[in-house]
Amino acid sequence: MRYKIVLEYKGTAYCGWQRQDNGVSVQEVVEKAFGKLYGVPVSVTASGRTDAGVHAAGQVAHFDAESNIPANKIPFAVNTHLPDDVRVLECEQATPEFHARFGAKRKTYAYRVYVAHHIHPLKNDFATLVTVPLDVSEMRRAASLIVGTRDFSCFEATGSIVKDKVRTVYSLDVCEENGEIVVRVTGNGFLYNMVRIIAGTLVYVGTGKLRADDVPSIIESRDRTRAGITLPAKGLCLERVEYCEEPG
Amino acid sequence: MRYKIVLEYKGTAYCGWQRQDNGVSVQEVVEKAFGKLYGVPVSVTASGRTDAGVHAAGQVAHFDAESNIPANKIPFAVNTHLPDDVRVLECEQATPEFHARFGAKRKTYAYRVYVAHHIHPLKNDFATLVTVPLDVSEMRRAASLIVGTRDFSCFEATGSIVKDKVRTVYSLDVCEENGEIVVRVTGNGFLYNMVRIIAGTLVYVGTGKLRADDVPSIIESRDRTRAGITLPAKGLCLERVEYCEEPG
Repeated sequence: MRYKIVLEYKGTAYCGWQRQDNGVSVQEVVEKAFGKLYGVPVSVTASGRTDAGVHAAGQVAHFDAESNIPANKIPFAVNTHLPDDVRVLECEQATPEFHARFGAKRKTYAYRVYVAHHIHPLKNDFATLVTVPLDVSEMRRAASLIVGTRDFSCFEATGSIVKDKVRTVYSLDVCEENGEIVVRVTGNGFLYNMVRIIAGTLVYVGTGKLRADDVPSIIESRDRTRAGITLPAKGLCLERVEYCEEPG
Repeated sequence: MRYKIVLEYKGTAYCGWQRQDNGVSVQEVVEKAFGKLYGVPVSVTASGRTDAGVHAAGQVAHFDAESNIPANKIPFAVNTHLPDDVRVLECEQATPEFHARFGAKRKTYAYRVYVAHHIHPLKNDFATLVTVPLDVSEMRRAASLIVGTRDFSCFEATGSIVKDKVRTVYSLDVCEENGEIVVRVTGNGFLYNMVRIIAGTLVYVGTGKLRADDVPSIIESRDRTRAGITLPAKGLCLERVEYCEEPG
């Protein structure tokens, strides 16, 4: 039987979603927890990696298991084997064709920054400090120029081996929430570090280091060095992964 | 020269404000940071202790130092010696009579809970999970019956040696903020664990374990066992400490 789960995790203590030799991964603790629950090794496949320190409010994954625990009881059962910074929030039975990675059609990420003179310890696990005022309306104008289906090479970390740099950004909003400025982006997929570089570029626009009107030519140039910096992992959160209604 | 400072800290990693033998205190790291800044030992006196795991967004403290660093530059200078979970946000020169503890007239605390089936790792450092629905309007009605100048023995942890149990609660509000329910209380002072027990009592009212109408007789009884449980430290935050305008 195949199951689809929704996970929330605080990425601070982890080397990212994917199993690695150099640290504890979220995948490892989730697979261990299901292994304890079912008494056999379980592979858990997520919609995609999240990097070291990145959080998730709605990561989606699938796994296969034979058991008579009802799907809606699985979160309660597996959560007893998980540390407090990782939780399975939802579980439902999926078709055998459901694949968390290959079936993912849209992902939404949020990047949080806050403007202040000093680090605020109560915000700092989930947002990045910016010490100069931000022009949010300029950031919004720049964001609107990023939306669309484009070659986003300029927003990709150097060294990637991915060949096709074309992605679709369906929406890119800049909102003020709880004293923070949130860059929220929905797309059909993202290049490596793309959301953190888009957020860094919008912050540069907000501070005046770049102009909103520069954005089209930066994208057209495909030149990473013309975009803004890659902001730190801790401000990034995978909020939602969406799938087609049709199986497969 | 006497200085007044405002501090924000995430209490998770600390044994509380006050220096103790059994762990690292916020006071210790703040005094060490000022010691490094000035090159001499510095005593820092806060408005009051916060317990292990309790956070502060606006703790106030004072210290004495002779130096030519302008007050408004002191936060930038001392913060370079502090860990990321403790920050001095503001500093101003105070009169020699200013005393952070004895001069404090009003304190405001917030206690955060969230209603869900499972722990939410992104909320869990700063709020307490409640797994049953809460009747917020009943909680508000109960809160209004606590406001006033009263003997609050029923809301004090047992074993305290404080003789005078009369305190004034100026306001006690139950608000919904960012998907959390926040109990915010302002008073002239609080008995040991008083805010965590008030929050626990209001949660009991919210779940129906107690009725709002029970509150006056619980207070009158002075009986700790009739009030709700002491909620965990992590949901509590010292938001503000207020002083009279007049010196002393």
